[in-house]
Amino acid sequence: MELTPVTDLPEIRPGDDIAALVADRADLEAGDVLTVASTIVSKAEGRMANLEDYPVSGRAEEIAARIEAIAGEEKDPRFAQAVLEESTELLIDAPFLLTETRFGHINVNAGIDRSNVPDHDLLLLPKKPTESAERIRSGLEARGIEDVAVIVTDTCGRPFRHGQRGVALGWAGMPASRDWRGELDRDGHELGVTVQSVVDELASAANLVTGEGAGGTPAVVVRDWAFGDHAGSDELFRAVEDDLVRQALREWSIDD
Amino acid sequence: MELTPVTDLPEIRPGDDIAALVADRADLEAGDVLTVASTIVSKAEGRMANLEDYPVSGRAEEIAARIEAIAGEEKDPRFAQAVLEESTELLIDAPFLLTETRFGHINVNAGIDRSNVPDHDLLLLPKKPTESAERIRSGLEARGIEDVAVIVTDTCGRPFRHGQRGVALGWAGMPASRDWRGELDRDGHELGVTVQSVVDELASAANLVTGEGAGGTPAVVVRDWAFGDHAGSDELFRAVEDDLVRQALREWSIDD
Repeated sequence: MELTPVTDLPEIRPGDDIAALVADRADLEAGDVLTVASTIVSKAEGRMANLEDYPVSGRAEEIAARIEAIAGEEKDPRFAQAVLEESTELLIDAPFLLTETRFGHINVNAGIDRSNVPDHDLLLLPKKPTESAERIRSGLEARGIEDVAVIVTDTCGRPFRHGQRGVALGWAGMPASRDWRGELDRDGHELGVTVQSVVDELASAANLVTGEGAGGTPAVVVRDWAFGDHAGSDELFRAVEDDLVRQALREWSIDD
Repeated sequence: MELTPVTDLPEIRPGDDIAALVADRADLEAGDVLTVASTIVSKAEGRMANLEDYPVSGRAEEIAARIEAIAGEEKDPRFAQAVLEESTELLIDAPFLLTETRFGHINVNAGIDRSNVPDHDLLLLPKKPTESAERIRSGLEARGIEDVAVIVTDTCGRPFRHGQRGVALGWAGMPASRDWRGELDRDGHELGVTVQSVVDELASAANLVTGEGAGGTPAVVVRDWAFGDHAGSDELFRAVEDDLVRQALREWSIDD
């Protein structure tokens, strides 16, 4: 398996065609996986915003005050309002905002970025990242580049382990996970590992290559990796019923 | 960045020298990262066990009964006992056992494997995976193979997202994470992403190549990836004080 960053992409602006920009710079082949950082997908989709776009609700005022009380750092209630508007559920309100975005992804601040966004205050995540991935895949097909899977990626933190790692937000042309159920180990026992989240693993692998910051390259071509002859699934985001941690967080709140 | 599985490793037995077995089969170079699945590290370290090795405590009886009541599936109390003995804290007791292992990793069933273990019932995780990684790295050095980082890997599930992905349990020759704090984006803003868990991302990348089951290859060579000129940290496992989800789980229990 080989990962190659797509270099020399320009600063992406609203309306830019990511498929075209990548196709001009990468020698894509059938069977490749193309990962694209959500930052450039968001920019192409015009998902920039300003704090003044968010008239503050009482809920956002409360949350900002609570974060200031608990975390001891100033929180702009307009930012809290932006996070609420991108979210369907608040999992933790302080000392930081952890929410579920409208497309099911759980992240701090609904994944809203305050760096990497020229001329605006905020960069929101793509509205429907799987549709974004499908559009990029179709754009490649329209240029005669067939059978390339596309993953829209982000980085985020997680419980239990420090640090951020690459994750998938949306995908097209491949299932999200590979199902080993019913397959056997060397000794003929059924495998303990059942469902492998390959889109997240590909996003993590790509994140090693993209880097961050001024030298960052937001798209990566993965070659010589194949999903193989396994069952697949497109379920990536856990519902509350399938997630004891989400259930525990519903009943819990940190004290002021 | 290129990932190549180490093929033709034999079935690993207690006392086997993993560094020697890999060195004979892989053309390792300075700067490479070698990932090794914890299953073969455990086998080399003799971490097999049988259910009869675990006289059952009252706590294990209770847990097995509770899992049977809630999950409706039979649970051997000796298995629950084995999990308790590998753990320092129980985060969830039913419908499955989620614990912190003695080296800080949080996983279902303390990572004890019931497949991939010939002639025994159970395969426990390595006792101190970072020491295991250091031993493998020293073993390579003793064969004249210098400057190869080693990561002992596992797969495990996570809250919020379905499926398992590769994670690091121990590492040697590189820091666990890369710290971007203070570095700037293209526009001169400080980066939002601060700490990147590179050992986990490398473990995830390797897991795409190893596969599971009869055709699985438990070691992978990562070439042309470099940690680069960044600050690093070896903190990977969150302490309770740094983890609101662990705090929430401490106060929460599913009803019978």
